[in-house]
Amino acid sequence: VLSSRTTLGKFTGFAEGTAAHAQTARENRIVRLTTEDARVRFAAQRAARLATAGRDGQPHVVPVTFAVDGDRICTAVDHKPKTTPNLRRLRNIAENPRVTLLTDHYTDDWAGLWWVRVDGHASVVTDDTAMQPYLDLLAERYGQYRQARPDGPVIVIEAERWTGWSGSA
Amino acid sequence: VLSSRTTLGKFTGFAEGTAAHAQTARENRIVRLTTEDARVRFAAQRAARLATAGRDGQPHVVPVTFAVDGDRICTAVDHKPKTTPNLRRLRNIAENPRVTLLTDHYTDDWAGLWWVRVDGHASVVTDDTAMQPYLDLLAERYGQYRQARPDGPVIVIEAERWTGWSGSA
Repeated sequence: VLSSRTTLGKFTGFAEGTAAHAQTARENRIVRLTTEDARVRFAAQRAARLATAGRDGQPHVVPVTFAVDGDRICTAVDHKPKTTPNLRRLRNIAENPRVTLLTDHYTDDWAGLWWVRVDGHASVVTDDTAMQPYLDLLAERYGQYRQARPDGPVIVIEAERWTGWSGSA
Repeated sequence: VLSSRTTLGKFTGFAEGTAAHAQTARENRIVRLTTEDARVRFAAQRAARLATAGRDGQPHVVPVTFAVDGDRICTAVDHKPKTTPNLRRLRNIAENPRVTLLTDHYTDDWAGLWWVRVDGHASVVTDDTAMQPYLDLLAERYGQYRQARPDGPVIVIEAERWTGWSGSA
């Protein structure tokens, strides 16, 4: 899982890309993860953050529980949208299906930092039959969903790019 | 810190708003945090996620280290943008200053979940003198920044709204 292909310079904090410091006290490096490494790390996490942006351009981000099936990621809303006019993620996706998901791991030893970002397109599944396979995936991962299956709808994200970085000493 | 004002129904996962389940096996609730509670929880975290969206509407989200001073949040880039053409957060903020920051805490006991979202406007500080007070705040929080001060620029977010939610049994 942790194989890394590229070394991209010193690492201070969560910055991405190459660093231009003349010297740092700690010579941490960041390495780019392979697509498969990124997917495996992402899929093993318990929570991710879903970023959306509506027509007004205001970005929005919420933590979500999720399941991964290949290049498809699903997350459920546990209550009907008609009862929750504030579910901005659903409004935003209706206006603009481009979304980003992030998982990350912080540690004060920055050599142990890593994060994975997924860019993709989201759709909202409201049909009860169509939702069931996604709810099954979610119920496999979360005991709470086995005890109380979400009403939905389900947000399905087709991942187009998995981008991952990791600190390494 | 944990005073809560409003009980908003049952809680399954990270969903927000009121839930409409007839019954759930676990009767968790979510409570809305006061602005001050939200700010205190957010400020104590070591990492947050910064969501931006450029003119093209593609949301972007990255983990960041940060410091809070009242309603102002700062985060530094550790390398010059001219060496990092990929720093989309800077391009996005130049095109659209509206940003959102998120901190969250996941636990498999969903009564312990919480998250805080900050909506605000960002600006990019590149002037070396103007950056110093922000770099001081960051260096106070992170030993790595005391050992190797970031080059900048610094992103400064003026928080307009602190929204926080917490699971409670």
